[in-house]
Amino acid sequence: MPMTSLRKHRVVFFATGNTHKFNEARHVLAEYNVAVALLRVKALEIQDDNIENIAKTSVMEAVERCRLPIFVEDAGLFVDALNGFPGPYSSHVYRTIGTRGILKLMKEVEKRNACFRSVVAFCNSKESPKSFQGGVKGEISQEERGDQGFGFDPIFLPSDCPDETFAEMTIDKKNEYSHRAQALRKFAKWLKSDS
Amino acid sequence: MPMTSLRKHRVVFFATGNTHKFNEARHVLAEYNVAVALLRVKALEIQDDNIENIAKTSVMEAVERCRLPIFVEDAGLFVDALNGFPGPYSSHVYRTIGTRGILKLMKEVEKRNACFRSVVAFCNSKESPKSFQGGVKGEISQEERGDQGFGFDPIFLPSDCPDETFAEMTIDKKNEYSHRAQALRKFAKWLKSDS
Repeated sequence: MPMTSLRKHRVVFFATGNTHKFNEARHVLAEYNVAVALLRVKALEIQDDNIENIAKTSVMEAVERCRLPIFVEDAGLFVDALNGFPGPYSSHVYRTIGTRGILKLMKEVEKRNACFRSVVAFCNSKESPKSFQGGVKGEISQEERGDQGFGFDPIFLPSDCPDETFAEMTIDKKNEYSHRAQALRKFAKWLKSDS
Repeated sequence: MPMTSLRKHRVVFFATGNTHKFNEARHVLAEYNVAVALLRVKALEIQDDNIENIAKTSVMEAVERCRLPIFVEDAGLFVDALNGFPGPYSSHVYRTIGTRGILKLMKEVEKRNACFRSVVAFCNSKESPKSFQGGVKGEISQEERGDQGFGFDPIFLPSDCPDETFAEMTIDKKNEYSHRAQALRKFAKWLKSDS
């Protein structure tokens, strides 16, 4: 394959156990002709209130083990009235108290502002990790709605499309607004500029 | 100092930023003539549902950096009706939604069983880490009570003394029942047998 073609069809490895995340990434990166392969390794995650630190540490450890161009993505839902809870530990909170737990905590709470934040961290064995951030503001809904997406999607109404939760949107529609798609687009643009 | 005396007055370093934990440890270890020094290094903590894994990784990393005989302690409150929430992330949950958040999640919940678990992990630069576990069963109270202790102590009623929350007890009384004191006693006994 000639070098130009290799560059056009660059392959990066997404270390994740979450196939929903992988599918969202695949759709976004396809817009930029970046091919992505699913790498099912359990990436080490540290406890830190800053998801950028979590993602960077995680990707460095994965690259150290696998010696491939790898990216990871770490995200969290930060609810203003709950002082940023569940934040970096959204996945554990989802597995234990779930969306219903968040709705119970938000019962009779009027200010329902929240944001989803995402950090994509990329590393190859030659350079220090690069990170790319995305964020989307919105509100916590009064009840669960929709069955697409994953995690807290059924209770998040993005400000720019406040009548639908993320779980009521197709992947492509969610990718127009989502924190993860924003971070992935920045990453894809950087990859292309770096080619 | 003669060797026998050195052994009697063995010093271990407790890596923690939590002075409440340090004071509880100091009281327990004094029962065994083990001197403990506070080591204010930020120990790395991984994200893991198993607090033993968190504590062992943490102490190995601290010893790697400091080359001292160090122990760390990791603990969590596991509420049955909340599928083990807040568990290993109790500290972040305390800092965001606090005891009031747990009480709101437990509103109108009849089965209020919970347990506190603790793991002490010790390591010196020569050996692989040893860990010691403690656990105490109890219930989540209907309201906060007491101003001693820290974290979720004001809402935890131990089964063996169900009329008082941990926050209504002196350090020495809490140490009769607590998960942390149990783990520390196992550690102290092992230290003495190892001398």
